[in-house]
Amino acid sequence: MASSALLKRTGMMKSMVNGFQGLRAYASVAVGSDLISAAPDVSLQKARSWDEGVSSKFATTTLKDIFKDKKVVIFGLPGAFTGVCSAQHVPSYKNNIDKFKAKGIDSVICVAVNDPYVMNGWAEKLQAKEAIEFYGDFDGSFHKKLDLSIDLSAALLGPRSHRWSAYVVDGNIKVLNVEKAPSEFEVSGGDVILDSIRRLGCPLLLLITIEEHLRVFMALADVYIVCSFSFYGMMHLHSSS
Amino acid sequence: MASSALLKRTGMMKSMVNGFQGLRAYASVAVGSDLISAAPDVSLQKARSWDEGVSSKFATTTLKDIFKDKKVVIFGLPGAFTGVCSAQHVPSYKNNIDKFKAKGIDSVICVAVNDPYVMNGWAEKLQAKEAIEFYGDFDGSFHKKLDLSIDLSAALLGPRSHRWSAYVVDGNIKVLNVEKAPSEFEVSGGDVILDSIRRLGCPLLLLITIEEHLRVFMALADVYIVCSFSFYGMMHLHSSS
Repeated sequence: MASSALLKRTGMMKSMVNGFQGLRAYASVAVGSDLISAAPDVSLQKARSWDEGVSSKFATTTLKDIFKDKKVVIFGLPGAFTGVCSAQHVPSYKNNIDKFKAKGIDSVICVAVNDPYVMNGWAEKLQAKEAIEFYGDFDGSFHKKLDLSIDLSAALLGPRSHRWSAYVVDGNIKVLNVEKAPSEFEVSGGDVILDSIRRLGCPLLLLITIEEHLRVFMALADVYIVCSFSFYGMMHLHSSS
Repeated sequence: MASSALLKRTGMMKSMVNGFQGLRAYASVAVGSDLISAAPDVSLQKARSWDEGVSSKFATTTLKDIFKDKKVVIFGLPGAFTGVCSAQHVPSYKNNIDKFKAKGIDSVICVAVNDPYVMNGWAEKLQAKEAIEFYGDFDGSFHKKLDLSIDLSAALLGPRSHRWSAYVVDGNIKVLNVEKAPSEFEVSGGDVILDSIRRLGCPLLLLITIEEHLRVFMALADVYIVCSFSFYGMMHLHSSS
């Protein structure tokens, strides 16, 4: 019983550690992947008005330009002008922008499978252009390369993306959170990734909560009890032999 | 010489008549086509907020529901939140809405290859929701069926539609105008189709302009001259025989 409890608690500790890193198994990229080399031919389209698009000669931005030598927090979502994206996902980054900047983040980026003019119209409506950089992935090629595409035709959206977030340092993915379903908003919000960034910068024991401390203590207690019983058993056998 | 001038002027008259009907050769449908049977399995998605989309269970609208037993003016454009579409195309219908209603038009409809939530956001920004019904063609199936699709990836838009307009009575296309290029705004505006609708309801001779009257008169004069010369020749031959 003590052994099974130990295994259970060890599992808890393992999931805790994964939780720190924000590991998820939905994307082709993972923590440790290089985002720039994962999608070498892909570029994104900075949100802009149509007139700005014309005057920019419809220029696009390479992933190297976005990520190289920078600390970037990026989040992707199913679509401009949709529910959770407008009401929760973007605000969770916009409202934390000072905290991201205080952590030395160079850019907080929102990306979706929309054209850059729609992204611009949406950013203006959300009054979020000052805080967040919006990019379109108009042909979905960025999300396809990252294996983060999903068909949302049932919601009248067509081929779009999962809901996700990542913390990327010099192109290297340090944290990656992907929701199990695009309608969910559990792991990809601004608060969660901000917490992950905080944890990455501190020693392990200072990061875990009181509840987590208690779990670690109980796991250690289990180990102590199992070892003590084993030791006691061995001593008993030794003395009786 | 008189005969070639006659042919040239007859050609002018023919192009004039075609001009009245707004005939263009870019689409699979044409004046006289039945729009409902041209795209029998296709439906459009009425513009709505995401919450309205959820409460409607992502319902779509059949072409029969839109066109059957109704007089409809419909116009299609390359994309929500793009230049000509926002600055000229939609306003040319919005600003003429009272004239359309006075002509007995039941619905003035704007459609684009966008999702219904983007279309809703754009309609709200243009303050055009009261006057115009906006529909999305999120997967482009409506425009594909009508052979009005076009790849606008060069403008960071992807597969979209030509810029076009039509006057449709009980599903039957009475007027169809398609711009030669989506960037043009020559034949698909509200003023042009309003004029076409006016002309359809009046006798032919009252519709044509002074210049057109002059051309008809000159063509008739040509016919008269040719006939006179022929008659004179015949009489001369008859009298000399």
